[in-house]
Amino acid sequence: MRSPQYVRNGETPSPHPRIPGPHFHSTVSLQKLRRFNTLILVFRGAAFCFSLAAAVFMFTNSRGSNSKHWYDFSAFRFVLAANAIVAIYSLFEMVASVWELSRGATLFPEIVQAFAYLLLSADAAGTALAMTLRDTDTCRATNSFCFQSDISITLGFTGFLFLGFSSLLSGFRVACFLINGSRFHL
Amino acid sequence: MRSPQYVRNGETPSPHPRIPGPHFHSTVSLQKLRRFNTLILVFRGAAFCFSLAAAVFMFTNSRGSNSKHWYDFSAFRFVLAANAIVAIYSLFEMVASVWELSRGATLFPEIVQAFAYLLLSADAAGTALAMTLRDTDTCRATNSFCFQSDISITLGFTGFLFLGFSSLLSGFRVACFLINGSRFHL
Repeated sequence: MRSPQYVRNGETPSPHPRIPGPHFHSTVSLQKLRRFNTLILVFRGAAFCFSLAAAVFMFTNSRGSNSKHWYDFSAFRFVLAANAIVAIYSLFEMVASVWELSRGATLFPEIVQAFAYLLLSADAAGTALAMTLRDTDTCRATNSFCFQSDISITLGFTGFLFLGFSSLLSGFRVACFLINGSRFHL
Repeated sequence: MRSPQYVRNGETPSPHPRIPGPHFHSTVSLQKLRRFNTLILVFRGAAFCFSLAAAVFMFTNSRGSNSKHWYDFSAFRFVLAANAIVAIYSLFEMVASVWELSRGATLFPEIVQAFAYLLLSADAAGTALAMTLRDTDTCRATNSFCFQSDISITLGFTGFLFLGFSSLLSGFRVACFLINGSRFHL
């Protein structure tokens, strides 16, 4: 409901300041929520891009038939699988985010920490293997193989960071929802 | 407020069942909370024991001056450091749990996921290194070195599981607190 001063017309602009009504309040909150959801969408998009890039970099990491391939090392297979799974999950969450933004509905809170754990453990295992390989013949013979593995693992770690950020924001939104009983109060 | 039938006195014991008053309710809830907090204490204790055992197993993993030591491998150093940090953290949280149980106060919600991430990544890195070492001269020469590393890493993973459980229960308690506005409703 608007305050009475907006109803009276034809008067000079009154010196008292505009008192925002509840409609104004909810519009501001809606805008805030929209910005918040857009930020979550950006983080999910970044997580998708980085994990997809990491998976592609690892998948294409083969140097001829004589040298080593990524599938010869279990840790690198793990890196590829984890990044591919997280990329699919992030794509799914991106679609959910777009749906939320277009319809104004809250669908998935994304408090599934399992994907972040999966990606981090894969990248940690990949790092340990990459560090061990550095002093062996594999890296001496084909240096580009090790270099490409490093890039893939770094991309995976960056994907993990963005996944963590988006998970943090989603968790914050859920906490706000629980505390205030409304998703509009951020 | 109690129902009126408790006020009228001198009547024969009525056939209607006893309706529990608010005092009874809060006693049941307090008992529930106590059991819940005890469970959290048990999980924290288990996390402490396993991570401490993992750190000790890794620290004592040296076979004479001629063979390899744990500090020759960065992933094993990481395993030792992560397990030691988590053991100290778990000890701290155990003290907090005992304080909570004795005073009935809620101190630390333990939603710090960083320690779980740290331990998991260290154990994943340790696993990758242990798997790589298995086919090398290090394991062929001193098999017990690799065996003890495996035990340490397995203990670390078990510690991570208990840390995750206790974190989950703590998070659940925080969520209950936020939803019901009281820590007594579980």
